[in-house]
Amino acid sequence: MKIVALAGGVGGAKLADGFYRARPNADLTVIVNTGDDFTHLGLRICPDLDTVCYTLAGLANPLTGWGRLDESYSALDAIEILGGPTWFRLGDRDLGTHLVRSDLLRAGNSLSEITQKFCQRWGIQARILPMSDEPVATIVHTKADGDLAFQYYFVRLQCQPEVTGFTFQGIEDARPVPGILEAIQSADLVVVCPSNPWVSISPILGIQGIRDALVAKKNVVAVSPLIGGQALKGPAAKMYKELGWEPAALSVADQYKDFITMFLLDSADVADCEEIRQWGIIPYVSDIIMKDIPGRIRLAELILNLASQQQGGTQPS
Amino acid sequence: MKIVALAGGVGGAKLADGFYRARPNADLTVIVNTGDDFTHLGLRICPDLDTVCYTLAGLANPLTGWGRLDESYSALDAIEILGGPTWFRLGDRDLGTHLVRSDLLRAGNSLSEITQKFCQRWGIQARILPMSDEPVATIVHTKADGDLAFQYYFVRLQCQPEVTGFTFQGIEDARPVPGILEAIQSADLVVVCPSNPWVSISPILGIQGIRDALVAKKNVVAVSPLIGGQALKGPAAKMYKELGWEPAALSVADQYKDFITMFLLDSADVADCEEIRQWGIIPYVSDIIMKDIPGRIRLAELILNLASQQQGGTQPS
Repeated sequence: MKIVALAGGVGGAKLADGFYRARPNADLTVIVNTGDDFTHLGLRICPDLDTVCYTLAGLANPLTGWGRLDESYSALDAIEILGGPTWFRLGDRDLGTHLVRSDLLRAGNSLSEITQKFCQRWGIQARILPMSDEPVATIVHTKADGDLAFQYYFVRLQCQPEVTGFTFQGIEDARPVPGILEAIQSADLVVVCPSNPWVSISPILGIQGIRDALVAKKNVVAVSPLIGGQALKGPAAKMYKELGWEPAALSVADQYKDFITMFLLDSADVADCEEIRQWGIIPYVSDIIMKDIPGRIRLAELILNLASQQQGGTQPS
Repeated sequence: MKIVALAGGVGGAKLADGFYRARPNADLTVIVNTGDDFTHLGLRICPDLDTVCYTLAGLANPLTGWGRLDESYSALDAIEILGGPTWFRLGDRDLGTHLVRSDLLRAGNSLSEITQKFCQRWGIQARILPMSDEPVATIVHTKADGDLAFQYYFVRLQCQPEVTGFTFQGIEDARPVPGILEAIQSADLVVVCPSNPWVSISPILGIQGIRDALVAKKNVVAVSPLIGGQALKGPAAKMYKELGWEPAALSVADQYKDFITMFLLDSADVADCEEIRQWGIIPYVSDIIMKDIPGRIRLAELILNLASQQQGGTQPS
């Protein structure tokens, strides 16, 4: 069983973890957004990649969904006393990751090579691939604050500025990491995780070849990150509104409709099913919130069952 | 009262701290060796400078003499798990210092500006000056292991290779930090702390203008870092032997004899006094070990008393 998951941070990491736990022996590839990577205090930080890795390694903080378990903030305390920047909450253990990664990057290793090494060290059996080894920087265009680096918008300004659009700097020159297109082509199931379509999934789809590879697939399932017009976490719903879209599961399905074959949405959004079905996509209504680890496994199992039924020709109703 | 101290790491920091505590209202300038500074994991690390600052700020670990009080090593644990380098024991709080310093250096600030800012933040009233803003790198020439970067020799190889000499890379182009020569010129007392003459004091003396400024002074006191042929800490005695010098207080006085006017040595080395006196230097025998903070203050007070007697024309016997 070959599974490919496209993921941003917390929500994506949870569902990827669901597959990892539900099918420990499956060939799981997680393709992770790197558009929110940035350089801070000289450290190359890859928030989504780290969240996915920490989650699958069992090292993530279950309360926040990001950052590490048993984390301390002594370095940050020392930075604060010296008047250094503290808006990005760097934990001590997390710092270890950024220091080693930055050092290996300077030594000429690619981000994917480094990630592979880290996964081995952390005992992760799944293959976690950054979308590209070339840096891509998400720029948030805002109505009143100009163009903002993503983490500055996301963490420092807590997503408050009104968004008018996004640019993914460097995406034209970014190539998919070796193995990504092959993994998609040979996958039995591709899952677009419930991550932010605008800033987590869109950069992945923008890497040359990835969207085309998905369009060619017959078994691509997406899970809505919006439930009843709200995102469980993060600014997705706010972004839809500011960009003139309805913050709705239907809008998500619309963005993905050229390549998904099935769409999972919450029972709160059952009214969206009819239009989705008219696009030739199978809608499936369920409880899609992953409250805890059993919830992650349950959602993964559901998707696996639906996909196998779809492959078997039985359309769930 | 204007006091200038030349210092390396632990021993220098202790005596500088003695002056700082003995004369809190004095105008104290500590000129610190930066020849053992290095770049590690992308961080600019200044071990002697940090040891002096941490000590005067009351942030130093009293058990080791280096590193910080209440230090934790979570980042280092994380680095170790990822296979990163752990031979240099980076504590979490210490990391905060290196991260902010490295960031400010990249932004174009000089090391002396950064050090001044850090001292303000840490509440240090004394002026702590790196010997130079230009990097100087101590290279240790060894018999069997070739040329070694200082920290590699010092920390990783624990000073085991046999030394044949030293090169201070960059010292020709290094200028004294603004204020150093003026501080020496106007000082009532200059003290060469009991630091390693080969790798802590020698680089300071090698910065253009510093040795000449000391030669012009009438009140330069040095404290022997060797007691009965042994260093209290570090490889000084071993270096003397390997370089063909007697590991003795007399050798230290010999290295400094063109600019010191008084030399403090331990009662174990009383036999060296006669020759030192013949060089026109006043030897003074005392207990020069600083076992604890009162010991630091006691040694500082002793030097202050001797210096004022010398200025008053009374030669202590």
